[in-house]
Amino acid sequence: MKMCWFQSRSLAVLILLLACATACTGAGTTESPADEGSGEAPQPELGLWRDGQSRDSIEAFVASVTDPSGSDFVPAAERIAVFDNDGTLWAEQPMYFQVIFAIDLMREAAEADPELAAQEPYRTLLAEGLAGAGAVDPDSLLAPLVKVHGGTTAAVFRETAANWIASARHPSLDRAYNQLTYAPMVELLEYLRAHDFETWIVSGGGVEFIRVISEDAYGIPPQQVIGSRVATAFEVTESGPVINRLAEIEFIDDGPGKPVAINNIIGRRPIIAGGNSDGDLQMLQYADDGTGPALAIYVHHDDAEREWAYDRDSAIGKFDLGLDEAAARGWTVVSMRDDWTTIFGER
Amino acid sequence: MKMCWFQSRSLAVLILLLACATACTGAGTTESPADEGSGEAPQPELGLWRDGQSRDSIEAFVASVTDPSGSDFVPAAERIAVFDNDGTLWAEQPMYFQVIFAIDLMREAAEADPELAAQEPYRTLLAEGLAGAGAVDPDSLLAPLVKVHGGTTAAVFRETAANWIASARHPSLDRAYNQLTYAPMVELLEYLRAHDFETWIVSGGGVEFIRVISEDAYGIPPQQVIGSRVATAFEVTESGPVINRLAEIEFIDDGPGKPVAINNIIGRRPIIAGGNSDGDLQMLQYADDGTGPALAIYVHHDDAEREWAYDRDSAIGKFDLGLDEAAARGWTVVSMRDDWTTIFGER
Repeated sequence: MKMCWFQSRSLAVLILLLACATACTGAGTTESPADEGSGEAPQPELGLWRDGQSRDSIEAFVASVTDPSGSDFVPAAERIAVFDNDGTLWAEQPMYFQVIFAIDLMREAAEADPELAAQEPYRTLLAEGLAGAGAVDPDSLLAPLVKVHGGTTAAVFRETAANWIASARHPSLDRAYNQLTYAPMVELLEYLRAHDFETWIVSGGGVEFIRVISEDAYGIPPQQVIGSRVATAFEVTESGPVINRLAEIEFIDDGPGKPVAINNIIGRRPIIAGGNSDGDLQMLQYADDGTGPALAIYVHHDDAEREWAYDRDSAIGKFDLGLDEAAARGWTVVSMRDDWTTIFGER
Repeated sequence: MKMCWFQSRSLAVLILLLACATACTGAGTTESPADEGSGEAPQPELGLWRDGQSRDSIEAFVASVTDPSGSDFVPAAERIAVFDNDGTLWAEQPMYFQVIFAIDLMREAAEADPELAAQEPYRTLLAEGLAGAGAVDPDSLLAPLVKVHGGTTAAVFRETAANWIASARHPSLDRAYNQLTYAPMVELLEYLRAHDFETWIVSGGGVEFIRVISEDAYGIPPQQVIGSRVATAFEVTESGPVINRLAEIEFIDDGPGKPVAINNIIGRRPIIAGGNSDGDLQMLQYADDGTGPALAIYVHHDDAEREWAYDRDSAIGKFDLGLDEAAARGWTVVSMRDDWTTIFGER
């Protein structure tokens, strides 16, 4: 069974998800980006992208595939564009926002249950808050993290996640999490849709978690979000049919899982793929498979002033093999520092 | 792991898939429907549906959810309609067309390999053709059937399936398989899309097999097809990246698997669900979950003259629990005999 591959990988991937925790003891003190708002109305097209190679390559590609008389013309029905979420469409430091959400749920559970509150890792999380995630044994976080994603229905989970998004604030940036999307990327999504692309999210994050923000934040409906997921089961209860979420990981949408999920769910090779880390490499390889026009885009976190600067050695968003392959193949590497006039846009 | 449930069910379901084979020894002699073509241009709206309760209920539901001033109004983005394929959008007798395709592939493999040709079930299939499927031990068919769905890339499999669709003929109806779609259902799909519904297929059949016909036959793009699937793996080969299909079933999109897959992939409750068998019951229950407007439609095969008549006791498309629940809950049960002016439309 293919799933065995995911089963054996899931532990490793979740530990990777959590690796950040070790590095985030000082999460609350991470430097805060000084975002620059232009104060003017948004410009048409890619107005938040500075003149340069990145904007040129995007505009040239879109022009070529939408020109009916050109040799690279692609019919609208085949204009599929896929984007990673964490680190590509919104920020991912000091740790994946979904991990912060899960840790908040763990703290809530412990506050309501004295017996749980006396146990690790709950005791440390209660005493030290989010920073406590760096102080506990990462292995001890895995099972509780998965647990708070299950044991409820899909409808209740969505409501819980929506409530969290509506109330939680980023530990250092003093913004709600749905205000931490990258304004130039949101603009790019709109630009692509204006050219009859269908825009998709293909994320290592949980599919139901992302769906809570995808429509408002990105203009992407739930059926165009692919992500990792827990196992679910259908049940007809006394109050009606429900989808139960189980505390078991069923699919990790990362690395080679991304092209596999794209083939399963979209059934068509994307002609644009965007990511920011090695976990997106196979998705970009799949898009740029040599059988037709393709644009592979990597967002490079090189802006320590306005966001964060990290790549080859980062526990979150490690960008090493991808950086090399992008250089070797002439893929578009977006410099957040040089190519974007703003990171998060105005408040 | 959730997959264990599918693993344990997959054998049973595939045997069910094949159960027909026992009943199809006489497949070549099954009565041929005498389809009536009107000879006139297609009428607007549901012109292939006769006046009656079925057409009324569909039109009334669509009118109510698209009326912005009504209490049942549903925004366009939430107008999701899901339909089973085999027996709902196209025929499924004397056996699922994908099983006929797989048996043809088995015969081709045996023709090219004398060693295989000497073994069962290949020997019988070579000697007796499709009817031979009823003469062999159903258990002996399972592994070879799965095998011909794997061992190749997604791209090659699609080409193989497309070539088969382009050349194969139904054993008794003397039509290509993609001419065996139900014209009134194709019209219904168009009618729904004209009212800003997004139309989806949610089928127990293989997702890649259905995608070969879905766009031309139904106007449904590949990313709106959900189905069963074999496991796949991404590989970067010397000639480029590919999706390899493995000879292992990963997901059976039947029964409770349908609402589970709808939640995973669409992430939104459908407000219209259509099927024809007990395998669609949970999908219809999920759509009609009591939380908002819903239309549940069952197509009843009651037309022995123009198609086939079968329900409670059929090995293919068994419609027993669903027939009872439809009556109890007032769901729309479409009589193919009484409600449709034509079955397959004109050639």
